[in-house]
Amino acid sequence: MGKVVVVGIGPGNYENMTIRADRALQNCDVIIGYHVYVDLVKDRYPEKEFLSTPMTKEAQRCQMAIDVALEGKNVAMVCSGDSGIYGMAALIYELRGDRTEPEVEVIPGLTAACSGASILGAPLTHDFAVISLSDRLTSWEKIEARLEAAAKADLSIVLYNPRSHGRPDHLRKACEILLRHLPEDRHCGVAQHIGREGENRQFFTLGELKDADVDMFCTVFIGNEMTKMIEGNMVTPRGYRDV
Amino acid sequence: MGKVVVVGIGPGNYENMTIRADRALQNCDVIIGYHVYVDLVKDRYPEKEFLSTPMTKEAQRCQMAIDVALEGKNVAMVCSGDSGIYGMAALIYELRGDRTEPEVEVIPGLTAACSGASILGAPLTHDFAVISLSDRLTSWEKIEARLEAAAKADLSIVLYNPRSHGRPDHLRKACEILLRHLPEDRHCGVAQHIGREGENRQFFTLGELKDADVDMFCTVFIGNEMTKMIEGNMVTPRGYRDV
Repeated sequence: MGKVVVVGIGPGNYENMTIRADRALQNCDVIIGYHVYVDLVKDRYPEKEFLSTPMTKEAQRCQMAIDVALEGKNVAMVCSGDSGIYGMAALIYELRGDRTEPEVEVIPGLTAACSGASILGAPLTHDFAVISLSDRLTSWEKIEARLEAAAKADLSIVLYNPRSHGRPDHLRKACEILLRHLPEDRHCGVAQHIGREGENRQFFTLGELKDADVDMFCTVFIGNEMTKMIEGNMVTPRGYRDV
Repeated sequence: MGKVVVVGIGPGNYENMTIRADRALQNCDVIIGYHVYVDLVKDRYPEKEFLSTPMTKEAQRCQMAIDVALEGKNVAMVCSGDSGIYGMAALIYELRGDRTEPEVEVIPGLTAACSGASILGAPLTHDFAVISLSDRLTSWEKIEARLEAAAKADLSIVLYNPRSHGRPDHLRKACEILLRHLPEDRHCGVAQHIGREGENRQFFTLGELKDADVDMFCTVFIGNEMTKMIEGNMVTPRGYRDV
């Protein structure tokens, strides 16, 4: 009986992977994942068997992982970022249901909230919300309510999936919602291609962000009322009184 | 001229550290941090110089890191979890101010939202808020408003610093606020001593969590309306329609 290890590989480069994730990929028989993520790790573990499915076939991909493990192989299901946050760990548990086999292990990885923030400076030092702008699996009404709630409560906000071909207007709509409660000059940052070729960062005000050129490879950070720019970096103070 | 590398070491064990964090600790001259975190890494990098300050002396500790780097040594400032989220990266930038020296690099690490979730199952698959219950640096009114906002918007919630000697009642008070909007049977999980000796997990309903024995070594997870228990694990589905 094999097992399924759901591995968060972090943003994509080897250096930002945990030692535990690296060992899991070394020790498995089969690496399964969305082809973009499989391509990120393929060269480093060349002797493995690789399986993948297209982008929207998440359940098919996870079922494949379970089936291959039941056949006796050790499977690493790779997720970019964390294995849990918008990752495949929940779906693996759902599909395994009330069975106890195959064994499932979840190995956490750096999610874009952490890795993207580190590129921008230190925008998430204080309480924050993580919200995906993809309405493929969530109603836009719910997303809108979450944006409003986060803005009203002065949480810093991290936006995942800010824009795609299917939803070119979502970031603009999100900014308009946030601007009902937040000032135009609220500090924002965008981290693109984190840990990959072309990694870069840009800073905007919330008013500017509305029309910014942000794509599906970006993670967007919206500061709280304390957030400021210090020497070109986006910084949210924790509030230490002895500074 | 030395540099300051702010290193998120993750929950505490070597395996959950990133390869980049490990290399940074190997390559530095001096490791600075709160003594509990310094103790977590001391044995693996025995040839380094170690400096630490007591718990509440964050600014003093960060100033020490800057001063030692200005004197020409490469400093690794270690933070448990991530270097940014409730970490020291912002304070380093604040104290450096409008100077450009010493060079500062921020290396992200696994925050307890990721590492704790992986122990409990997959509770953070969907949008969530991270809120600290420590009112040392934040007013309780603000914390209360954030809890209310997150609950009303059906965000999963991760509570950092749920209880300490100075605030034995905070978790109970937080649960009472959440229970104004969420049902008594909402699924909750507690991860304790993540990645350290004695690592364990417990599951509660929100009604039970109010009186649960939770200490400062715990991270608390409160599910959203979709969260369920599957074969002993806490799982928040993303909502894939093809399952």
